[in-house]
Amino acid sequence: MTPLSIHTITNKPWSVEQCIRAYAAAGVDGITLWRYNFEGGDPSAVGRMIRDAGLVCTGLARGGFFPAVTKEARAAAIDDNKRAIDEAAACGAPVLVLVCGAVPGQALEVSRGQITDGIAACLDHARAAGVKLAIEPLHPMYADDRSAIVTTGQANDVCDALGSPPEAGIALDVFHTWWDAALEIEIHRAGRHGRLFAFHVCDWKTPTLDLLNDRGLMGEGCIDIRRIKSWVHAAGFSGPDEVEVFSTRWWAADQNDYLTKITAAWREHCL
Amino acid sequence: MTPLSIHTITNKPWSVEQCIRAYAAAGVDGITLWRYNFEGGDPSAVGRMIRDAGLVCTGLARGGFFPAVTKEARAAAIDDNKRAIDEAAACGAPVLVLVCGAVPGQALEVSRGQITDGIAACLDHARAAGVKLAIEPLHPMYADDRSAIVTTGQANDVCDALGSPPEAGIALDVFHTWWDAALEIEIHRAGRHGRLFAFHVCDWKTPTLDLLNDRGLMGEGCIDIRRIKSWVHAAGFSGPDEVEVFSTRWWAADQNDYLTKITAAWREHCL
Repeated sequence: MTPLSIHTITNKPWSVEQCIRAYAAAGVDGITLWRYNFEGGDPSAVGRMIRDAGLVCTGLARGGFFPAVTKEARAAAIDDNKRAIDEAAACGAPVLVLVCGAVPGQALEVSRGQITDGIAACLDHARAAGVKLAIEPLHPMYADDRSAIVTTGQANDVCDALGSPPEAGIALDVFHTWWDAALEIEIHRAGRHGRLFAFHVCDWKTPTLDLLNDRGLMGEGCIDIRRIKSWVHAAGFSGPDEVEVFSTRWWAADQNDYLTKITAAWREHCL
Repeated sequence: MTPLSIHTITNKPWSVEQCIRAYAAAGVDGITLWRYNFEGGDPSAVGRMIRDAGLVCTGLARGGFFPAVTKEARAAAIDDNKRAIDEAAACGAPVLVLVCGAVPGQALEVSRGQITDGIAACLDHARAAGVKLAIEPLHPMYADDRSAIVTTGQANDVCDALGSPPEAGIALDVFHTWWDAALEIEIHRAGRHGRLFAFHVCDWKTPTLDLLNDRGLMGEGCIDIRRIKSWVHAAGFSGPDEVEVFSTRWWAADQNDYLTKITAAWREHCL
């Protein structure tokens, strides 16, 4: 059976300690941290707490945001990504998820070049730390300021341009990619190179009322999650389903009730 | 110099009569109607009013919405599209814009098949009426319930599948297509087949606060409109720039002031 992991941002009202306790009690297998979980805290202490609770740390979100207008800002982004890699290593996250970035008004191909250069500049650091870098193709509605990489094909292209190092791969999120007719082909292309590092699930609601924070819980929307999951697993991925739901609506709900709904929705729509 | 046309929905608070008077007074060349402009009225009378004002009717929005779960609903959609074709012919619109449709949860390739079948069933009617059908690829954020056709490449594929009849082509909107790395190639592919029927302009704001009604006026966002326009014209298109802005913010403004801003923004960012 596929393991289940949950991104802490899914339960944004909870502290990381609350997430760890509640996920472990609910029988969840893993947890993907967000960098805000370390604010005022120590990543290695959080990692220890995760292991002590019997959970696996499945990733850290998020690095990236490489494109910038000035050379100085691009260098600062690389430095910040190296810090994120160190945090991932400290907390025991095998993968750092990259939201690669974009600059409004800068041509997307220019930003993709800066992303490639930025990741290239982090590879040695990642290798030494034992952390993998997972490019997350984002939905095209985020192409203005969040990601110039809007398809799985472009994520594969960047990995190819880097020379297919074992540290660079892809985090595939059904929310960002479900509309793409080339998705199955590009998942298999990624699988052939062993670069499928993470699989994120949630759903696309009709209507979606906010570009950022109105994702659906699995089953609340139109995505055929099982179909995409079957492609990912046929391509050799054997990691967990990671639930990542940004939702103002769900963040306002009782988080214990919500966690029960998350695990039920996962069983019903992902297994 | 490129002619300027405006979609009546850009000035949604205005009646079609107000649009015609104001566009003509502002030196705008053309007007693209929306079917709501005919509610309780006669399309041919609207067409006469347009010509009497010295304007050109550049299109009618919108037909489409072909996919449906039942055969009956798909047949009803075809009938409605034939009525829209008749309305286009009556008002003198050379082109009917198609928002092709999608059914939440139905596989997008199934919907694209139903779209192809639906357009095929309308071609004779369109030819007899002297009206062209322009598939508008919509942004992937509308793939759930508005359009299974989310790239210019898919619009070209549908035209190819129909046998490239002269009545079937593409309405290219920068808002829907700017993110697509294959855009230039697919514009040239469309141009080679003489199937570029319309070019819509507006802008993508950062942040975009609503999936439907927060478009920007040209210059308010990140789209390099002139670059895309240069591709469209290099591919043989010689029609007008059609301004189509859905914006709760601009609809709340004084529409006369707004029209002045529209023509100024067009001169500054599209010419």
